[in-house]
Amino acid sequence: MTDEPEKSPPTAAHDLSADDVGLVVARDFVHRQPFTFKSGQVIPEFSLRYETYGKLNATRNNAILICHALSGDHHCAGWHTPNDRKPGWWNNLIGPGKAVDTRRFFVVCANVLGGCQGSTGPASSHPETGQPYALRFPFVTILDMVRAQKLLLDHLGVTELHGAIGGSMGGMQALLFAIEFPRFVHRILAMATTARESAQAIAFNEVGRQAIMQDLAWNRGDYPKEGGPKVGLAIARMMAHITYVSDASMDRKFGRRKKENAPSDAYNFDVQFEVESYLRHQGQTFINRFDANSYLYITRALDQFDLAQAYGSLENAFRPVTAESLVVGFTSDWLFPPEQNRQLALALLRSGKSASYAELSTDLGHDSFLLESEELYALVRQFLERGQPPTVDHSL
Amino acid sequence: MTDEPEKSPPTAAHDLSADDVGLVVARDFVHRQPFTFKSGQVIPEFSLRYETYGKLNATRNNAILICHALSGDHHCAGWHTPNDRKPGWWNNLIGPGKAVDTRRFFVVCANVLGGCQGSTGPASSHPETGQPYALRFPFVTILDMVRAQKLLLDHLGVTELHGAIGGSMGGMQALLFAIEFPRFVHRILAMATTARESAQAIAFNEVGRQAIMQDLAWNRGDYPKEGGPKVGLAIARMMAHITYVSDASMDRKFGRRKKENAPSDAYNFDVQFEVESYLRHQGQTFINRFDANSYLYITRALDQFDLAQAYGSLENAFRPVTAESLVVGFTSDWLFPPEQNRQLALALLRSGKSASYAELSTDLGHDSFLLESEELYALVRQFLERGQPPTVDHSL
Repeated sequence: MTDEPEKSPPTAAHDLSADDVGLVVARDFVHRQPFTFKSGQVIPEFSLRYETYGKLNATRNNAILICHALSGDHHCAGWHTPNDRKPGWWNNLIGPGKAVDTRRFFVVCANVLGGCQGSTGPASSHPETGQPYALRFPFVTILDMVRAQKLLLDHLGVTELHGAIGGSMGGMQALLFAIEFPRFVHRILAMATTARESAQAIAFNEVGRQAIMQDLAWNRGDYPKEGGPKVGLAIARMMAHITYVSDASMDRKFGRRKKENAPSDAYNFDVQFEVESYLRHQGQTFINRFDANSYLYITRALDQFDLAQAYGSLENAFRPVTAESLVVGFTSDWLFPPEQNRQLALALLRSGKSASYAELSTDLGHDSFLLESEELYALVRQFLERGQPPTVDHSL
Repeated sequence: MTDEPEKSPPTAAHDLSADDVGLVVARDFVHRQPFTFKSGQVIPEFSLRYETYGKLNATRNNAILICHALSGDHHCAGWHTPNDRKPGWWNNLIGPGKAVDTRRFFVVCANVLGGCQGSTGPASSHPETGQPYALRFPFVTILDMVRAQKLLLDHLGVTELHGAIGGSMGGMQALLFAIEFPRFVHRILAMATTARESAQAIAFNEVGRQAIMQDLAWNRGDYPKEGGPKVGLAIARMMAHITYVSDASMDRKFGRRKKENAPSDAYNFDVQFEVESYLRHQGQTFINRFDANSYLYITRALDQFDLAQAYGSLENAFRPVTAESLVVGFTSDWLFPPEQNRQLALALLRSGKSASYAELSTDLGHDSFLLESEELYALVRQFLERGQPPTVDHSL
């Protein structure tokens, strides 16, 4: 997910009467029981930071889970303060009257287990020792993320999901929800994702991890909270950012434009091109909000994602699924290319499941799923209407 | 250019009777006069390391210049010793009876100015101070590389080029040869290249430079000969390598195969996948043969390459060209995509030049121009036959 550079300093409060969920508060779900990871490793307890928008209806059948991508978090809609520079990362999709209509749906989004935005992860302290887990944190898989979120949904009194929606790593989570909790989930919407991480995607993740782990400040994962391998993390992020966009979109947005005040005859290694300045900004803002060990853990979870390998075959993986599914690919996504999304939908169909595939033409690359698109909104809106509509509780 | 991992230790001498140029010796051309760069900066002298194969004929019209890419060098054919693990990097294309037939052509290839394989570059010592130039080396452009090679050709008694051939940065050099020395060059063959570096390509270069410059061992370019920012350079190379191949070729070559001896339940950050091991190998072999400052200088030269900007317009740039040109794009090249090659040929045609464009179907990515391809060999062979053939000097 892209960090957009701030366009102007925040001067006035946002118009919170606009059609979004307005001011929201993040909460913590603390699961005070041991949690066993897929690896067999156990932590004595964990917590997930989450947000909800809209209300759970009396029949408890209007819940939608939003699953975030590698660098996302629980804050997917609304504003934390009137002076926030940006709303939640999927604010264009989620809100009253929007594609995911918070007047009708109870929307839940949690920072994943292993994350660093408030949920338990490598940067958290072990409750007994008080020391950060760092590399002593168990190795996390997408399945672990999903199981932890299921415990949160149980805690919230959610007995079924009208839908699970996510892009990229979020799409992987939606798929695993439908596989692991089949009767619990009625619809999954997986965008810009894959049934297995490709060699190229693993390769990019590995370069990012090497940039972090070769930074001396990494210190095998033991670094102070405000320190750590900032340089390596920024480089990992700069590189990853290129994979989230596209040749065409970078060309349109920056082309070969020189940075303002960059002398036209500058023969040096400082910033000359706007695209360089933008990338450096991406790296710098990321290190202020993301933990390097979390980056290692979550990219490894992505690498390990391979449904066919985990369940014997894709057909085996999908056998228990009862949810209807919609898979959406984006033509210019070269991280999880359309073909991988198409194959995913095909495998669901081959397994006798109700699956649709939509391919949206865009030149904005992998991050297309996050960006404004009336076409995508219409798809999401219609998909959520399919089959049994949730009870609308007019008293809410 | 890819470093292939050694498949087996060298045990026997290669069969030098095979149809290649056999044992070759690199030579140094020392230009003992000041050289003025495009930037206006001057060095008191420079040298280029080069190789030649075949013989210059009596009429001196059978010379072909081979121009190398970012990480290439002067050693493009034959073997330095009978026990070399690999021949020169374009040995499949160049040799007796091959597409660039050394029984007919006098082939010249030099390490570029600014390089680190024997030619003068940032790692060279200033002849007066005896200290390495490091960042005191003038900023290099592709034009500077071309002008230095022209001085070498003059020195060798080459009065005209039957052809200039190169891929990637080598293609840029071939283009500039035709523009700057129009009557000197009869044919240019530019593959997997562009008329200007795209924003995405600049972005990848910038991440590589940041990896190097943020490595503390870089020390603003002043590092001991055997030291320097090895970690940063390896990371830059690992990332760049991904851009030289393709999603499909990595998938075929490595897929999700685990490294031999990697326990299947390994939940850690060591090498698990073969593709990780391969990339680390790419990084490690590169740091033993490449200078980090050279990497900065040459990637900056690539970024600065923009024919339209340098000459006012592409039409202006190409106006003086008299050479026939063949531009070759490769379908899976996403660093210098087919479209950029096609546009280049189109601009040559629009300028009234004799230009052809060929697009070869391959799923091997940017490095396709370096790999075995009977289709490419046939194109090269036929292109070199076009128009006035060089005198064949049977006495040679």
